[in-house]
Amino acid sequence: MNISESEKDTFSEAERQAIYRVMRARRDVREFRPDPIPFEVLRRILEMAHYAPSVGFMQPWNFILITSLDVRRQIKQLFEARNAQEVTQIEDAQRKHLYGQLKLEGILEAPVNLAVTCDHRRDSPFVLGRGPMPQTDLYSTCLAIENIWLAARAEGVGVGWVSIFEQQAVENLLQLPPGVELVAYLCVGYPREFRDRPLLEEVGWKERLPLEELIYRDRWGNRFVEQAI
Amino acid sequence: MNISESEKDTFSEAERQAIYRVMRARRDVREFRPDPIPFEVLRRILEMAHYAPSVGFMQPWNFILITSLDVRRQIKQLFEARNAQEVTQIEDAQRKHLYGQLKLEGILEAPVNLAVTCDHRRDSPFVLGRGPMPQTDLYSTCLAIENIWLAARAEGVGVGWVSIFEQQAVENLLQLPPGVELVAYLCVGYPREFRDRPLLEEVGWKERLPLEELIYRDRWGNRFVEQAI
Repeated sequence: MNISESEKDTFSEAERQAIYRVMRARRDVREFRPDPIPFEVLRRILEMAHYAPSVGFMQPWNFILITSLDVRRQIKQLFEARNAQEVTQIEDAQRKHLYGQLKLEGILEAPVNLAVTCDHRRDSPFVLGRGPMPQTDLYSTCLAIENIWLAARAEGVGVGWVSIFEQQAVENLLQLPPGVELVAYLCVGYPREFRDRPLLEEVGWKERLPLEELIYRDRWGNRFVEQAI
Repeated sequence: MNISESEKDTFSEAERQAIYRVMRARRDVREFRPDPIPFEVLRRILEMAHYAPSVGFMQPWNFILITSLDVRRQIKQLFEARNAQEVTQIEDAQRKHLYGQLKLEGILEAPVNLAVTCDHRRDSPFVLGRGPMPQTDLYSTCLAIENIWLAARAEGVGVGWVSIFEQQAVENLLQLPPGVELVAYLCVGYPREFRDRPLLEEVGWKERLPLEELIYRDRWGNRFVEQAI
């Protein structure tokens, strides 16, 4: 899996534009077509996940591809049970109504679900760089998840992250051993469409924040003034 | 920040190759040239971070650009204090020696450091999808960090993640308010080189794991057998 000499080259403007376009065009997808995904496509996506950085080169991730309709039906039930609780947390009537209208998952429609886990035990007891911040194994797993999301988009495949269920119940269902944690539960498949904007922005749930307000200099709260650095 | 109609198009083989090449060629960089980074380059990298997915479109991230040499010297001291402890954790003499020879950060050599934070308070009390898994705000911040890493590589800019220090001490130094957490402390600058392979692989600290062994089907431990799904 070494890279060739040519891979060390700089990126052309056209290549950079492709990389930026995939980041802008990536979406959280909840509406899928039932078409199967060729294995070589899925393999390329997982290979890109595996190229993600990890603390101490720990590679703490595993990928559980879930095709079993029985397992997915149980996951869907866990989603529905918890989602019914979630909606009761919203006080504003209009937002409560809007929430109820949103499709938040595609567990059964997508041809495959993908659970990405973090194995806290890997390379135990000493992982270079992890001692002071043990959660960096979870963080590393998330870096791999972003690679999945982007590589999938490049392949025309949609990904949707489902977080509305009891984590422990899903971990039990997937038979994760002690020390292994579910990080992301993803629905994966060819989408009905890639929307122009995130759904939550489109329906008026939440606006994109102005980037400039999120950038500080040297310490929290000190607004950044543009200059070369 | 809407995407144009053309952005909905599929990606060509050449574009896909550019996207995969940047994922393969990304490195954790610890040796930097002192050259400054033009602001427009840094701005593009942070814009890509801001396009990352986030739970409930929460966008929990902030970006603190650290150019102050005084602040960076204090960070460097925190690194050195903790790193001296870390090495004592390694029992094997040969690995202890190897660890001592590794350059693990470029805090002072890089022209800028970048602290990426997660604001747990944002959109409080109700974030769509976060209730059952509160840590998804941290996970979202990590997705933005991978975009930073990839966009930087596309610009020829190196990124190195430093995790060896007391997190709370760095948070105090950067004056993070209660409810805001440091997720990543990154050194950012033009690298002396992008290595062919990860440093820890190159020096024999750790091998890349075989991807096939990390893929399961339907439940933990059930090895995946290749087929279309």
